[in-house]
Amino acid sequence: MAPVKNGRVLFNSVPEGFPEPGKTTVYDASQTIDPDTVPLEGGFLVKVLELSIDPYMRGRMRAPEKKSYSPPFALGQPLVSHGVGVVLRSEHSKVKAGDHVYGMLEHQNYIVKKDLFLLQTFENPNKLPWSAFIGVLGMPGKTAFMAWREYSQAKKGETVFVSTGAGPVGSLVIQIAKSQGLKVIGSAGSEEKVQFMKEIGADVAFNYKTTNTAEVLEKEGPIDIYWDNVGGETLDAALDAASLGARFIECGMISGYNTGGAPVKNLANVIGKSISMHGFIVSRLEEKHSAAFFAEIPPKVASGEIKYREDKYNGLETVGDVLLAVQKGTNKAKAVIHVADE
Amino acid sequence: MAPVKNGRVLFNSVPEGFPEPGKTTVYDASQTIDPDTVPLEGGFLVKVLELSIDPYMRGRMRAPEKKSYSPPFALGQPLVSHGVGVVLRSEHSKVKAGDHVYGMLEHQNYIVKKDLFLLQTFENPNKLPWSAFIGVLGMPGKTAFMAWREYSQAKKGETVFVSTGAGPVGSLVIQIAKSQGLKVIGSAGSEEKVQFMKEIGADVAFNYKTTNTAEVLEKEGPIDIYWDNVGGETLDAALDAASLGARFIECGMISGYNTGGAPVKNLANVIGKSISMHGFIVSRLEEKHSAAFFAEIPPKVASGEIKYREDKYNGLETVGDVLLAVQKGTNKAKAVIHVADE
Repeated sequence: MAPVKNGRVLFNSVPEGFPEPGKTTVYDASQTIDPDTVPLEGGFLVKVLELSIDPYMRGRMRAPEKKSYSPPFALGQPLVSHGVGVVLRSEHSKVKAGDHVYGMLEHQNYIVKKDLFLLQTFENPNKLPWSAFIGVLGMPGKTAFMAWREYSQAKKGETVFVSTGAGPVGSLVIQIAKSQGLKVIGSAGSEEKVQFMKEIGADVAFNYKTTNTAEVLEKEGPIDIYWDNVGGETLDAALDAASLGARFIECGMISGYNTGGAPVKNLANVIGKSISMHGFIVSRLEEKHSAAFFAEIPPKVASGEIKYREDKYNGLETVGDVLLAVQKGTNKAKAVIHVADE
Repeated sequence: MAPVKNGRVLFNSVPEGFPEPGKTTVYDASQTIDPDTVPLEGGFLVKVLELSIDPYMRGRMRAPEKKSYSPPFALGQPLVSHGVGVVLRSEHSKVKAGDHVYGMLEHQNYIVKKDLFLLQTFENPNKLPWSAFIGVLGMPGKTAFMAWREYSQAKKGETVFVSTGAGPVGSLVIQIAKSQGLKVIGSAGSEEKVQFMKEIGADVAFNYKTTNTAEVLEKEGPIDIYWDNVGGETLDAALDAASLGARFIECGMISGYNTGGAPVKNLANVIGKSISMHGFIVSRLEEKHSAAFFAEIPPKVASGEIKYREDKYNGLETVGDVLLAVQKGTNKAKAVIHVADE
């Protein structure tokens, strides 16, 4: 086989506010690779099939001196995110050609990997689309399932409010909460997303851009659990509408990611209402809840009992635009970059 | 016995910022009572000995339509707070003359009580001063002991930061944390309070008015536990200095009590650092931890192993000024109103 293009998406500069396609990230098509002959040096060659674009990635687009839970992207190097690939060739004892790998993958067409660091091979007995493994069966799905198990203390008849309830995390939270007999209030930023939340069982679904969150919660609350993907004013409204002993699961605060943080004013409610607020990083919950996740979720996805949606984009060239869409919330569902067919 | 003065401290108007002695509360000496003949109607007569002035009382000085965990004070009626009294006469089957009662008492010299609602009789086998029962052995002491047991998950060698570490709650937290082998950083608002924190074992004690909190925590942290009595900027500094998996015990946010709330900007650290933040109301922890508290703390107070300090004021006439002092932090230690000798 002759050398082929090995396209890459490079982290080019630190965004000041929102990411800027072509500036903060650039698509680079200058490299080539010969998949048949590229030296593996004891490793293996991965062809990237699907890549995930997630809200948290904004946090990695930062200057290296700023500390956070995930390392910053390296300037001039490819972005990295959760993805699925297929192994084309291998000299590694634990990996063979034809295996599929899930984990952190560079944003490029072909990658020579030395080992399975931040990667694992996996089976797909239910013949689900590969992209499902970066959504409902991947990090977002685990985030919803594991943190709900760890922190919600959900009881039948309670009320939960889920912000960004049409996203890959929020939509699974809604379905789990409904299956446990809770009243579910969900918010999202478009009529189409509101429609999807209703389809998956939300008792109350509203568009926060056209409906006042505090008014909805005043009417439909108080809320016993708040699943926060947003922070800022939405968190303030939830604090005001919380019941005594409420649990707040802090999954994300996207309202502040591109503005240097969104101040919260109503935090004193934490004391007055005995609220427990739990931040978490899903990787710290994996060991405890992985077995339950894989026993419960894949069969329900395969049977259709658990629904999920994807917003699929074709090719690495689209990554910059999709990164921005996810930060602005203009994507329609879980953002997936379809990099290549198998 | 001839009728005697029955002085009262009345809630007179809702403060807009800080309480104003003589305006938001007034001392009223117009009533008299004859302790020998006042009708008890099946109840009992309490002579008030000691009353507590606590930071949370600002929250009760509010308009009645505003909801919170403790009911608002009634305009035109006496303030109510934790106190100790002695029973002079009784027609109640569970109370006899000479008993001492602890609990919620009106700010007046003599009170006819119908029943033991929010009150209990108690013994004082170690002959401790009555005022100890509204401080280290009362609500503030229980607050420190019970919330620490419930939420700290303290491990030897960890670091805790205690704000208002010279107060009745903070100073007990410091002593408990030291006894469990933690490194303790304490802050307070005067050199005298700093000295007291050192005396009770704080490894690092500083005056937040003359020393930058964030700089101290940067140097002495990261912190695994934050005991928050302050909120606002101090909480922001603690969020920045927290370690992965830190526990924040939200006991109070006095920095916002008189200003309509102090915004918090660094809350996204809750996610990035997997922080759990626990608001609480001590009455909800009593059932679980009362036995341990009474087994452990009174003997240690009697032996001097646990130290406490009081800032004692004489007479109901001082209540208005002391309320303000506690909100401003100009009191020197746990504020106690000595209403009468036994």
